[in-house]
Amino acid sequence: MNKRMIIYILSKMLGVEGAVLMIPAFVSLIYGEKSGVSFVIVGAVLGIIFLLFGRKPPESTRIYGKEGFVIVGLAWILWSLFGALPFYITGSIPNYIDAFFETVSGFTTTGSTILQDIEALPMGISFWRSLTHWIGGMGVLVFVMMITSLDDKNSMPLMRAEMPGPDTDKLVPKARYTARILYGMYFALTAMEVILLMAGGMNLYDALLHSFSTAGTGGFSNRNASVSFYDSAYIDGVITVFMILFGVNFNLYFVLLIKRGWKSVVKNEELRAYLGIIAASVAVITVNILNMYGNVMHAFRYASFQVASIITTTGFYTADYELWPELSKVILLSLMFIGACAGSTGGGIKVSRFVILCKSIRQEIKKILHPNAVTVVKMNGKKVGADTLRGINVYFAAYIFILVASVLIVSIDNFDFATSFSGVLTTLNNVGPGISKLGPVENFHMFSPLSKLVFCFDMLVGRLEIIPYLLMFSPDLWRRRF
Amino acid sequence: MNKRMIIYILSKMLGVEGAVLMIPAFVSLIYGEKSGVSFVIVGAVLGIIFLLFGRKPPESTRIYGKEGFVIVGLAWILWSLFGALPFYITGSIPNYIDAFFETVSGFTTTGSTILQDIEALPMGISFWRSLTHWIGGMGVLVFVMMITSLDDKNSMPLMRAEMPGPDTDKLVPKARYTARILYGMYFALTAMEVILLMAGGMNLYDALLHSFSTAGTGGFSNRNASVSFYDSAYIDGVITVFMILFGVNFNLYFVLLIKRGWKSVVKNEELRAYLGIIAASVAVITVNILNMYGNVMHAFRYASFQVASIITTTGFYTADYELWPELSKVILLSLMFIGACAGSTGGGIKVSRFVILCKSIRQEIKKILHPNAVTVVKMNGKKVGADTLRGINVYFAAYIFILVASVLIVSIDNFDFATSFSGVLTTLNNVGPGISKLGPVENFHMFSPLSKLVFCFDMLVGRLEIIPYLLMFSPDLWRRRF
Repeated sequence: MNKRMIIYILSKMLGVEGAVLMIPAFVSLIYGEKSGVSFVIVGAVLGIIFLLFGRKPPESTRIYGKEGFVIVGLAWILWSLFGALPFYITGSIPNYIDAFFETVSGFTTTGSTILQDIEALPMGISFWRSLTHWIGGMGVLVFVMMITSLDDKNSMPLMRAEMPGPDTDKLVPKARYTARILYGMYFALTAMEVILLMAGGMNLYDALLHSFSTAGTGGFSNRNASVSFYDSAYIDGVITVFMILFGVNFNLYFVLLIKRGWKSVVKNEELRAYLGIIAASVAVITVNILNMYGNVMHAFRYASFQVASIITTTGFYTADYELWPELSKVILLSLMFIGACAGSTGGGIKVSRFVILCKSIRQEIKKILHPNAVTVVKMNGKKVGADTLRGINVYFAAYIFILVASVLIVSIDNFDFATSFSGVLTTLNNVGPGISKLGPVENFHMFSPLSKLVFCFDMLVGRLEIIPYLLMFSPDLWRRRF
Repeated sequence: MNKRMIIYILSKMLGVEGAVLMIPAFVSLIYGEKSGVSFVIVGAVLGIIFLLFGRKPPESTRIYGKEGFVIVGLAWILWSLFGALPFYITGSIPNYIDAFFETVSGFTTTGSTILQDIEALPMGISFWRSLTHWIGGMGVLVFVMMITSLDDKNSMPLMRAEMPGPDTDKLVPKARYTARILYGMYFALTAMEVILLMAGGMNLYDALLHSFSTAGTGGFSNRNASVSFYDSAYIDGVITVFMILFGVNFNLYFVLLIKRGWKSVVKNEELRAYLGIIAASVAVITVNILNMYGNVMHAFRYASFQVASIITTTGFYTADYELWPELSKVILLSLMFIGACAGSTGGGIKVSRFVILCKSIRQEIKKILHPNAVTVVKMNGKKVGADTLRGINVYFAAYIFILVASVLIVSIDNFDFATSFSGVLTTLNNVGPGISKLGPVENFHMFSPLSKLVFCFDMLVGRLEIIPYLLMFSPDLWRRRF
């Protein structure tokens, strides 16, 4: 394993984080907050690390998939460890484990929080909190790749390790250009949302923060009451639409806008399944909560916002769905499990994995009925390779194991089953809120430090789709001969 | 599809059920209960069906895997539909859906009940209730095969479709002999348990019923308080040991007793994992409940009984674990999920499937670390074929889909999440009790008819390991050309 190169890239990355911290520092300056100094201090430390280890590349710069996974796995932990410092130094979050939890939740775009009073945060700190969503959404490393100068052969292993979904395509031959195009579209969509929110009467600061959260499918708000604070059907509608848009595979926007391939977009099976699930869930929940809201329009407004928020793993809320009937709550739990489209900023298992799993069940039935027939699983007309299928199955099995193991540990805290189970489900899928004692108006402050660390692990594992951290637990990786 | 042969075998089977009903009829006679007439009536109806359709085989007697699954799928439903009639006719269970639920629960060896007062049942009816466990444990069709004269080429598809576990071996070349050997060992173990229970002061009737339940890993008791009624450490111990014994793959007993292959038994990976999981769970729960029971011996007694009862999917109880800390409850829920060994009478996903899933995760990690190395998944030294692996993965995915879909429907009844979730988990894995409102001292009476039918489906699907019923939902199966 090329350890020097790992240290070099990680230091580069930390340097980038140091630079990024100047943005909230600037926000603090505007609002005249002393707490802005914390960003400068942490930024300086990161700058020194960069100057010491991140300036000169080692002699051998070659890295492979293995190193890619290690770098990505460590990168997210390091960014979170340092990113938590401003919360801790300013006393906004007096406990470091809590600050770490909040930062992991930010970068992984989970949006779970331990804060009891979000509105008490300084403006700069709250800005940093939401900015982590925006950076984490597209991927910490894709972000770094875009603004630094890693050469192409080194970029792909990183990008593969970080991008969500069963299959990563390069949009264009060069990984760096891919990163730029992705971030370009990401930036444009975010800007559009900011403008539309301001058109609905939101101030620039709130509009920026909520757009960061929507774009990263994170869920942090600077309001204790989340989006319900604004109590505006227009704002609910804008955010609903943008949450759904950010849950779509970004490759489709590329195909649509740059290649003008609207036909292949319309026929995309994952997109159809995604929109189908949303439509069905909204319909059932609207009927289920009708008598709580009096008329169809109201019920539809809250149902569609909540469905979009949960399936895209954003986690905003406009209604306390903890008060909804059990059926609606279980639908929302199932949506957490499914998640958004592959290649989007959303978390969860991803719609395409479910579509492929369904198809492989159907294939198995066909095999039993016609033992001699040759059957293949197809997705968008193309054959799904045996490697991809095996990868999905292994991912799914590992996912369930981690889910069960996490619930076991968290249940030591002795909260009811719905709380423990939904807490693990919501963090592992990067959603944010759960049910029962983790309903939308509640949060994670009451858990033990052990449980909080388990949740941090689940958030990271969920965001990076398990494999990087599974690798890091493999003794094989650390043997000398590699 | 050979429909005539399907009708022929199903009628034969119903004839056997009619004959079996004479056993509880005899029990009713001994106790002088008029309700025994119900068994005679149903037995007569079944006898007529047999005489009409089950005596002369059709011209073509050839059946394949496909027909095997259809026969098994329908057989279990028909046995349950008719087996429910004595409960209904005698008024012991006034609602037919409830009676069907109770019978499905019996044959599938689940042990979930809708009865509020079990001790109010007539002796013959209660005997029939427990006898369904004993017959269902080894398999309705294996039972029929043993006592009728299906030729060998027709027996294997049936046996494969009904036997639990990822891989079915014939112990000896002829399927019928395999069935006889299995039932012989089953009978011997049951008899041993009856004798040991009577040695502890239980009367013959109670000893028989509890042994039927233990053998089938069912869980029905003729006491409202289940095994806690006897309040005897000796009886708890005997039942604990026998539950664990009936959760072991019966092939191992065959190897041990007839082939004297103790070495391969000791080295069997599934057995080791099974005993390891039991030991670890008992240890953790003993510590976790220590302060509730005062001393280690007491805590160990209740922990080991409950662990054995749940992992083997029996479902007896000696303690109300609903009062235990959440950790212990979640461990028990996880054990439900795992289940017993393949080729035993126990339900659940089966230990061997989990062992293989774990190994395939490890293999995937190795593949990433050494992309060019050839890696294989081995079990007991033998390579696990790609077909078996794919089958396990598909099974696992289908299992999770059915779990989620069932929880969705059941949650319409609006019970808390722990109730709905554990209700589905316990029926799908043929365990019996759940947690929350389905804790050991509670039961299933309060659910809507729709939910009860979903639970019936889950019990059947769980017992037959999904595939037969998935096939029956496949339009392909019913097309003319087959």
